[in-house]
Amino acid sequence: MAASSYRYNYTMALTLYWGSGSPFSWRVLLALVHKRLPFESQMLHFDKQEHQSPQMLKMNPRGRVPVLKDGEYVVFESVAILYYLDTKYPAIPIFGTSPEEAGVIMRVICEFQSYAEPFLLKIVAAVFANRIAEDVDVLTDAMHVVGREARTIEGRLSREDWIVGEHYSALDMVIFPWIQLLRRALDHPAATELGARFLPMETNYPALARWIHRIESLPGYEQTYPPHWRD
Amino acid sequence: MAASSYRYNYTMALTLYWGSGSPFSWRVLLALVHKRLPFESQMLHFDKQEHQSPQMLKMNPRGRVPVLKDGEYVVFESVAILYYLDTKYPAIPIFGTSPEEAGVIMRVICEFQSYAEPFLLKIVAAVFANRIAEDVDVLTDAMHVVGREARTIEGRLSREDWIVGEHYSALDMVIFPWIQLLRRALDHPAATELGARFLPMETNYPALARWIHRIESLPGYEQTYPPHWRD
Repeated sequence: MAASSYRYNYTMALTLYWGSGSPFSWRVLLALVHKRLPFESQMLHFDKQEHQSPQMLKMNPRGRVPVLKDGEYVVFESVAILYYLDTKYPAIPIFGTSPEEAGVIMRVICEFQSYAEPFLLKIVAAVFANRIAEDVDVLTDAMHVVGREARTIEGRLSREDWIVGEHYSALDMVIFPWIQLLRRALDHPAATELGARFLPMETNYPALARWIHRIESLPGYEQTYPPHWRD
Repeated sequence: MAASSYRYNYTMALTLYWGSGSPFSWRVLLALVHKRLPFESQMLHFDKQEHQSPQMLKMNPRGRVPVLKDGEYVVFESVAILYYLDTKYPAIPIFGTSPEEAGVIMRVICEFQSYAEPFLLKIVAAVFANRIAEDVDVLTDAMHVVGREARTIEGRLSREDWIVGEHYSALDMVIFPWIQLLRRALDHPAATELGARFLPMETNYPALARWIHRIESLPGYEQTYPPHWRD
């Protein structure tokens, strides 16, 4: 086998199994594109239960996406995939360039997962299931928590282009898809009241809004955008 | 300043702020001891709200422990601390020795945090708040989830000494304190029924029980044991 062919096979050995609109999947798409890693894209249709197929369950018994295959190696859980990619393909780093920066990036990822994600999940699930009216008190509380966390990020972004450090990092990739999903949920007519203090972001969170445009302008962004959101 | 004095200051610059019985704190103590990193131990008393003091809130506005200080650098969130320590002091690795191993260790940590920790929190909080009777259905369901996750780990430990790979890793450090805390909670007289299928671990989870003894026999383990559990 010729060396060039070997290199070709090597880089093309990455396959990402993902779902349109899954914030966890979107993170990994952003990372692959930013790191300029060629990959085979396997978009699974949630409505056809493709993420629960025998082939997928063999790779991830929990039947969740994203799942990354690198040759024969399989890894899942979005943050673990980001970490694996950065350890295996460090040329364009996404966890900073020093242990100190790596620690802060991972710290804010952990904080986001503990203190924001459960509330975001609650809000988004309720909007898309048309359960806003029945859960309005719980959801209002959840929006308060999300708003408080968003203000902390707003503060960081009013001073810097990226949430931590001088470069676009795994942290931006972890948070961005959730903000996009939240905006989409709060745009729903039934969510007007719930989103009143959040939307429009240009007014309520101007630095976050600029950060969103910054990411949307990155090379390759378009190919990460959830296809079914265009319909 | 003499070189030896410099080296001394360098290694002694680590200070850990922690709380007795906090599984998140215990993880970091296990890592520091295993990595043979000298550190200044600052045990805070939760009952005196020492973790909410102005000094602590300045380092971590959420007022949570553990918090690690390394010179002027501050990091918190236990998994981020483990990651920082491994990146900064890699001599004795705790995230494996290859990107592939690192990915699996981080993957199982993420799985544990998503699929086990919320249920463990629920059980432990209810037992120590004497709320078992009123929440018995929720807690029974939580014990089912915990039991299922424990069986997966039992399966791994029946084949290997450590949960992932050939060495004691950050993953063992993340899970071990929770198993100890769960055992302690289920030992409570009011929790007998709840823990009936879990305890004694020697019978129900023999490989996990052997793994606990393995960690308890590690050098330095004794100094990580929650002091107030001895009383």
